[in-house]
Amino acid sequence: MPGFRVVLVRPENQGNIGAVARAMANFEFDELYMVNPVAIGDDAKRRAKHGNFILDSSVTVGTLEEALDGCDIVVGTTGIRNLGEKKFVRNYETPAEFAEEVAGRRRKYALLFGPEGLGLFNEELLKCDRVISIPTSAEYPVLNLSHAVAVVLYEIFLTGYARDSVRLSVADDREKLNMHFAELLDAVNYPEHKKEKARLMFRRLVGRSNLSKWEFFIMMGVITRSLYAVGRRKGMK
Amino acid sequence: MPGFRVVLVRPENQGNIGAVARAMANFEFDELYMVNPVAIGDDAKRRAKHGNFILDSSVTVGTLEEALDGCDIVVGTTGIRNLGEKKFVRNYETPAEFAEEVAGRRRKYALLFGPEGLGLFNEELLKCDRVISIPTSAEYPVLNLSHAVAVVLYEIFLTGYARDSVRLSVADDREKLNMHFAELLDAVNYPEHKKEKARLMFRRLVGRSNLSKWEFFIMMGVITRSLYAVGRRKGMK
Repeated sequence: MPGFRVVLVRPENQGNIGAVARAMANFEFDELYMVNPVAIGDDAKRRAKHGNFILDSSVTVGTLEEALDGCDIVVGTTGIRNLGEKKFVRNYETPAEFAEEVAGRRRKYALLFGPEGLGLFNEELLKCDRVISIPTSAEYPVLNLSHAVAVVLYEIFLTGYARDSVRLSVADDREKLNMHFAELLDAVNYPEHKKEKARLMFRRLVGRSNLSKWEFFIMMGVITRSLYAVGRRKGMK
Repeated sequence: MPGFRVVLVRPENQGNIGAVARAMANFEFDELYMVNPVAIGDDAKRRAKHGNFILDSSVTVGTLEEALDGCDIVVGTTGIRNLGEKKFVRNYETPAEFAEEVAGRRRKYALLFGPEGLGLFNEELLKCDRVISIPTSAEYPVLNLSHAVAVVLYEIFLTGYARDSVRLSVADDREKLNMHFAELLDAVNYPEHKKEKARLMFRRLVGRSNLSKWEFFIMMGVITRSLYAVGRRKGMK
């Protein structure tokens, strides 16, 4: 995700820094800046797992300004929301809204995450062009730092993610399947007055199931074999 | 989220268990079962923060069957996907797809998360009615356990989340604002041949900005004051 830089502002717990690096690798982000972080040691490295290359290439700076150098849009994050609509400082987008809105733009975004204890200062949020907040319980809104990073990066990653291609069944497939099912009802002497309901039940069940091509083939095979087995299709085998 | 039970199967790291408890509190889940977990000590409690009440009420059992008692639908999770469409065992839904599909249903779902090292066994996934996988990098697909839990719970929480109510501007507001902006262009002797473009630019900018009612009032105030300041509206003050 070359359009994004993750900026940890004064992170206090090196374990969290490691966990952030791992989440970045999981979601294909690789640019990590830290402003006055705690020292990084074994705990961070252990938690980073296969994300250690991100720790190795991370940039440590002394001021927020240095961390923002080269970025077009500064995006703050906050766990504290309910301050009323007049409080612009923390008016926010959800991660999903943000991710959808920036998808495909050729901008460089700095994603700022504050320290574990207090989060970003108001004066830091004032410098932000946009602010993200993750919907959470009003009772306990503050996420662990690495969890917050993971959720935001996950949402951004999702917008560019192409699912593993599973071939889906088409309408013709499902129609064939429904006809075979109806034939099976006949073959097993299903009560006449209940047939219509059973056919509808099956059609709806298949309709909801997001049936793949492969699942269609298997279902067809099972029903066809059942028809053989009950003697309905003696001529075929 | 009374319709969901989080089941950690053989969790190996007590820090992760604590982090899971915290994420559960963040997203309003409170039922935690663990199958043969590592012993819980200070590290788990420290990481759970305000989610310690979930650790306190968690249920530890010796078999997966016991953990599923009372649930209607068993949902597995896996970080390992690319096994082809014929491999039903790991055919999956994304967390967003799952959350959307189950929203509002009156069912009890057990959400199974495997151990950090290897995840759920195939034989455990075979018992699952549905399987979730979180879209991640193909290079490094395996999330930290508590991150995986956080993302899945976040998606489920989102489906029931009502945003803080910010009053939005209506079309009439934006039209007034556009007219005031046009008046400002006149007042400052903006070049005649560029006015149309500038008005369109402003209209589009406002259109994209999801302008709130309060932001509308402020913008109107700023432009009105500017008109006074340049002497356009001498009679008013």
